[in-house]
Amino acid sequence: MMRAARFYNKLDIRIDEIPIPVPKENEVLVAVEWCGLCGSDLHEYTDGPYVIPRPGNPHVITKETLPITMGHEFCGRISQPPSNPNSKLKKGDAVMIDPRFYCSDCHRCSNGNDNACVKWGFLGLSGGGGGLSEFIAVPESVCHVLPEGVDLSVAALIEPLAVAYHAVRKTGIEDFGGKDVLVLGGGSIGMAVVVVLRMKGVKKVVVSEPTMKRQGYCRELVDVVLDPVKEKVGDRCRELTEGKGVDVVFDCAGIERAMADGMDALKFGGLYLNVAGWITPFVVPQGIFMTKEMEIRASMAYTGEDFRDTVKAFSAGKFVGIEKFVTSRVLLEDVVEKGLKELINNKDDHVKILFTPKKEYVT
Amino acid sequence: MMRAARFYNKLDIRIDEIPIPVPKENEVLVAVEWCGLCGSDLHEYTDGPYVIPRPGNPHVITKETLPITMGHEFCGRISQPPSNPNSKLKKGDAVMIDPRFYCSDCHRCSNGNDNACVKWGFLGLSGGGGGLSEFIAVPESVCHVLPEGVDLSVAALIEPLAVAYHAVRKTGIEDFGGKDVLVLGGGSIGMAVVVVLRMKGVKKVVVSEPTMKRQGYCRELVDVVLDPVKEKVGDRCRELTEGKGVDVVFDCAGIERAMADGMDALKFGGLYLNVAGWITPFVVPQGIFMTKEMEIRASMAYTGEDFRDTVKAFSAGKFVGIEKFVTSRVLLEDVVEKGLKELINNKDDHVKILFTPKKEYVT
Repeated sequence: MMRAARFYNKLDIRIDEIPIPVPKENEVLVAVEWCGLCGSDLHEYTDGPYVIPRPGNPHVITKETLPITMGHEFCGRISQPPSNPNSKLKKGDAVMIDPRFYCSDCHRCSNGNDNACVKWGFLGLSGGGGGLSEFIAVPESVCHVLPEGVDLSVAALIEPLAVAYHAVRKTGIEDFGGKDVLVLGGGSIGMAVVVVLRMKGVKKVVVSEPTMKRQGYCRELVDVVLDPVKEKVGDRCRELTEGKGVDVVFDCAGIERAMADGMDALKFGGLYLNVAGWITPFVVPQGIFMTKEMEIRASMAYTGEDFRDTVKAFSAGKFVGIEKFVTSRVLLEDVVEKGLKELINNKDDHVKILFTPKKEYVT
Repeated sequence: MMRAARFYNKLDIRIDEIPIPVPKENEVLVAVEWCGLCGSDLHEYTDGPYVIPRPGNPHVITKETLPITMGHEFCGRISQPPSNPNSKLKKGDAVMIDPRFYCSDCHRCSNGNDNACVKWGFLGLSGGGGGLSEFIAVPESVCHVLPEGVDLSVAALIEPLAVAYHAVRKTGIEDFGGKDVLVLGGGSIGMAVVVVLRMKGVKKVVVSEPTMKRQGYCRELVDVVLDPVKEKVGDRCRELTEGKGVDVVFDCAGIERAMADGMDALKFGGLYLNVAGWITPFVVPQGIFMTKEMEIRASMAYTGEDFRDTVKAFSAGKFVGIEKFVTSRVLLEDVVEKGLKELINNKDDHVKILFTPKKEYVT
């Protein structure tokens, strides 16, 4: 038996004792090391189920409904390698898991857009187990081996970094050397976008973030952090770009007020890239949208290629400063009290909270 | 003295007797032949003033406030050529007027985006006279000579065609040969987009238009006209594109329900190009926007280059079928009764109503 944090309903996540999964052919058993919580997990907890399948409406690939083991940002070690003798995976290997379900068949998958498969789902949200447990059985193909010596408590950030990597790729901009960028929101996705942009040699990144603690974390990674409550973000961005405005805005906030700032800060013909999941309606301020002839683009999750590239860049140490994202490391059992409730009650104190089933890691 | 239709306030447009304007240096006097009414004129009449400058708040270039002579889609003949002996303009020349004001100096103008000059304005809305009058004095530079023998009652459509030309250019697509396109709204801008797309060799254009009369006009120009009240526009577009969905949607409707249809009809990663002025908030349906990773782009008016290109294409007879847009030709004096009120009360009977100050044209 093993411990797993399972979602029963909103405000009802329980630590259950459930059987250790038995890998099928071409599957491996992974012992989870670290798992992050993300904004969508929080939305499921406070107002869900959204993505998590309700009784009577199972996920089209997993066929499962709640209770569902949570956690989709996780890494671990191979506990039971695959039966396939040609496999490169060995017991003890450190692996990052690509948590997505996709069909490989639909018109999106077959055009390289498996990020938006018509049957999309995630381990930790749609069934198949999750990272908030001791073990998970997954296909060999979703395991990405990490180099020995890597800090696995930071490696779990590869998942949000892949989201950011995809978003940056969606801009279509190859060379960020001459680009000025504004990132709305200094949470984990916003900071991941900053780190990816730095890797891409961006000229200038400005972050707009209203809370003091996050402003502090952001300041360690970017030159300019604006407080949208106290400063006029558009005016400040124009000051910082010789009057032009920024070339690209990444919306990692998902609130109307931030959007107004972002559109104000954007140059004529600039690109507004939405990464955020919005709770309120996505209302575009029409006047400025039209007179600046803007472009608004959506970025959703990441493709298999994005994930591989992100693992590679992580393993090569190219994401400078990401360890600063981790604001707390706690035990799996504490996911509600020291995780979800902490994100609700002391939201501003956190960027990323990581969980482990291993007591020895969080003494 | 001459007659001019002047805007005093919403629901208050009067035919005034005012002095014939005296051309300044580098200006010419144009005798108006035909002038169209557009959706923004109607908005000014029913709910304005929007663009028309109110007392105390003059337009930054013209320094004028209401009453303002209306009409920005117009052509005429040179009544008094410029004093400049090197001018190519001769008395009697047929000319189309580029009605825009722009400063030529701001960061937008100096980058070729004079369509969105920070001081933008229009003859017929911002001062400087308008096409709903007998004469207008304009700079020589805004007059585009049309070939002799051209039908001037159709030439006034060059202005809405320039709007469509710019919108099509904003897609960034050079070759429409392989492209399937949906146009939302079969009004004059929607039909102008159709005509421009046909000139660009588009593979397939579908128009969605709810009113019977306009459906009839559209059917003369496109293969497929959908009735969004009776048909599922998205499903029909997929049927017509082997399941893929359309590559580009042009929003020439500006209403929420049409947008929902357009986004449903769009393929994954497709382009939603907004040409319409929206009266209600521009609310993007978030779920489909994100899962299809769409792009939404704004198109505003036209540049000087667009206008020149449109005049050239018009003069070469490349806009096939545009005469079908004109659903009524009436006298200047009847602008309220047979123009604005007709567009309010019998909206569905019209695409474009044209006005002339010349009684002999509308006997």
